[in-house]
Amino acid sequence: MFDFQYYAPTRVVFGKEAEMQVGDLVKMYGGNRVLVHFGGQSAIRSGLLDRVKESLDAAGIFHVELGGVVPNPHLGKVREGVQLSKEHGVDFILAVGGGSVIDSAKAIAYALADPENDVWELFAHTRNAKGCLPLASVLTIAAAGSEMSNSCVITNELTGEKRAYDDDLSRPKFAIMNPQLTATLPDYQTQSGCVDIMMHTMERYFTNGGNMELTDELAEGLLRTVIKYAKVLHEDPENYEARAEIMWASSLAHNGLTGCGNDGGDFASHLLEHEMGGMFDVTHGAGLAAVWPSWARYVYKEDLHRFVRYAEKVMGVVREDQMTDEDMALAGIAAMEDFYHSIDMPVNMSELGIHPTEEQILEMAASCARAVGGCIGSAKVLHEEDMIKIYKMAL
Amino acid sequence: MFDFQYYAPTRVVFGKEAEMQVGDLVKMYGGNRVLVHFGGQSAIRSGLLDRVKESLDAAGIFHVELGGVVPNPHLGKVREGVQLSKEHGVDFILAVGGGSVIDSAKAIAYALADPENDVWELFAHTRNAKGCLPLASVLTIAAAGSEMSNSCVITNELTGEKRAYDDDLSRPKFAIMNPQLTATLPDYQTQSGCVDIMMHTMERYFTNGGNMELTDELAEGLLRTVIKYAKVLHEDPENYEARAEIMWASSLAHNGLTGCGNDGGDFASHLLEHEMGGMFDVTHGAGLAAVWPSWARYVYKEDLHRFVRYAEKVMGVVREDQMTDEDMALAGIAAMEDFYHSIDMPVNMSELGIHPTEEQILEMAASCARAVGGCIGSAKVLHEEDMIKIYKMAL
Repeated sequence: MFDFQYYAPTRVVFGKEAEMQVGDLVKMYGGNRVLVHFGGQSAIRSGLLDRVKESLDAAGIFHVELGGVVPNPHLGKVREGVQLSKEHGVDFILAVGGGSVIDSAKAIAYALADPENDVWELFAHTRNAKGCLPLASVLTIAAAGSEMSNSCVITNELTGEKRAYDDDLSRPKFAIMNPQLTATLPDYQTQSGCVDIMMHTMERYFTNGGNMELTDELAEGLLRTVIKYAKVLHEDPENYEARAEIMWASSLAHNGLTGCGNDGGDFASHLLEHEMGGMFDVTHGAGLAAVWPSWARYVYKEDLHRFVRYAEKVMGVVREDQMTDEDMALAGIAAMEDFYHSIDMPVNMSELGIHPTEEQILEMAASCARAVGGCIGSAKVLHEEDMIKIYKMAL
Repeated sequence: MFDFQYYAPTRVVFGKEAEMQVGDLVKMYGGNRVLVHFGGQSAIRSGLLDRVKESLDAAGIFHVELGGVVPNPHLGKVREGVQLSKEHGVDFILAVGGGSVIDSAKAIAYALADPENDVWELFAHTRNAKGCLPLASVLTIAAAGSEMSNSCVITNELTGEKRAYDDDLSRPKFAIMNPQLTATLPDYQTQSGCVDIMMHTMERYFTNGGNMELTDELAEGLLRTVIKYAKVLHEDPENYEARAEIMWASSLAHNGLTGCGNDGGDFASHLLEHEMGGMFDVTHGAGLAAVWPSWARYVYKEDLHRFVRYAEKVMGVVREDQMTDEDMALAGIAAMEDFYHSIDMPVNMSELGIHPTEEQILEMAASCARAVGGCIGSAKVLHEEDMIKIYKMAL
């Protein structure tokens, strides 16, 4: 067991029509001039943006808006938000959307708190943030967990680099979670979200250092819940209870709770996928599903007992006569692939619809190794040559 | 499933020698003049108080101290702390101790933020708090969960009334949790703590309204963990890993996490025990163990499926042929009693060592009914006559 800090100060307001409280909440946290940041047309078409603006108006809060955030959000949009916020004296950033919009909002908030320096330096890891404007979200996609996390991932569209920056300064003040807002999401997005949610906890579960029984119990319970309700939503996408289970799981999977007492997590699958996302612009969760089984088969021998425990407690694999620990671990990975297939998620890059060349694989591995300073992983430490092997296994 | 808010902003600093960071943490949260509040001699004898003061000195923070907080902390000590704090211009309250000390610190912090009004009015529920000075803790007993909760229980020693006040204003800024600090606790205190920890989650689990699968999974995992490590500590009290599991469980059991999506919880067992604590000054957790089995047998038919689920998932009761749901529920309650006995906890008031007279039972029930405005409970709503019956069952 490792020492740890746990810090998740975000106030969660969860339930039907919760977005109607947004004006009062911004006011409670001292916001007077708000940048309303969002993605595409769906927030407009659904009427959500209007409801948010009405609530802000009712609370007497000035607001200016900026849409157009794309998945794998771009640095250029961040710079646009910074410029607009400066022009209007914005003091609070409100993200209306999913992880991409919240991540873009976090980057804008960092930039506004330190206007002297280029915000990309945070993502290039050449300096740490000095501050961050207060920010919050009205969540519309359950996946990234950015609504409670200290993480933020931005893509520099000029260089193709997709980089993360983690800092508690960017923990959002509040998160409004109305599961109804996710009910119209296409199944592919919903299921990609479920994969991402699980992976945030699996990255913390498969570590080769110490662990805590309580953390493992919480992680396993969360994973079983997501598996159960991902399948429900695949059949019945408007099921409110299932939407609610998945939405709350998205926050708890990535707010630090499921990592207490471990060594910070593995996160190799995430970093491997980041390169795929940077090069091919794939949906993040689907990309994770395409790489995880190969990662798992590459590393499981280093962390055999946890893969056995995972098979038993999460995937429900029952040990039959003569099954070795290795058989159990592999059966757990296969069961995970079966689950991915059951919700129409890929288990390799070919099923994901991307076919990187040998050269592109070498480039992704080199970029990944560069981004992490040589090696990644806890379950097994991976160097550039390991990354190449995993990408090839995942073709 | 009910709508909910979740808000647990306390920064947890968990691990060996974590108390050495207290000075820096107080500074981070803006404290300049600190009241160090503690209980008996053990914090002095163990050297903990000296280490805390050294850390405050090193950070250049003024401090004044007040010890002598007793279990079921007294209003008189709160008033003493308020007076002392006013004399020294205190702006931050640091509790060094367990739930009683933290609760006393919360009451002092409420009083200092509103010096015009009597703080007991909060506990008498005649008004709400306007503010609360920042407070934090160095935790030495895993039990009450007060280190992350919004709850606070004070006893008016002049009237014998023991009353709770809940308000997010009193959520502590940080909690320093070094499991080593609990290693010398007598077994009776340790096990009473384990009972209390479980009960904070059980109060939220046995509700008759909606529920959330994710919350149930987290609750069940937490309860299994406490059962496992309470037994370990009964045999091996200095086991660091077990102390750590129990300590972290104490916070998560009462910070709101295990109640998300339910109707706020039952809390009848707690309120019934509060009257026993007010009249007889029993150890809180042991008092809960003495009343819960009787409460459970009185209410289980109203909430049968949850009692069956509890028996299966928490107590590990296996359904044998011909066992009805009622048999399962009762087997779960009996298994809980076996667990209490295995850690030398009582299952009724006689084993607890108190023998209230008929008159005293009527007085406790009347006081409880008065305190809650007539009735309590969610699993089953209890009126004064129900409380009398449960107290008599628990003799």
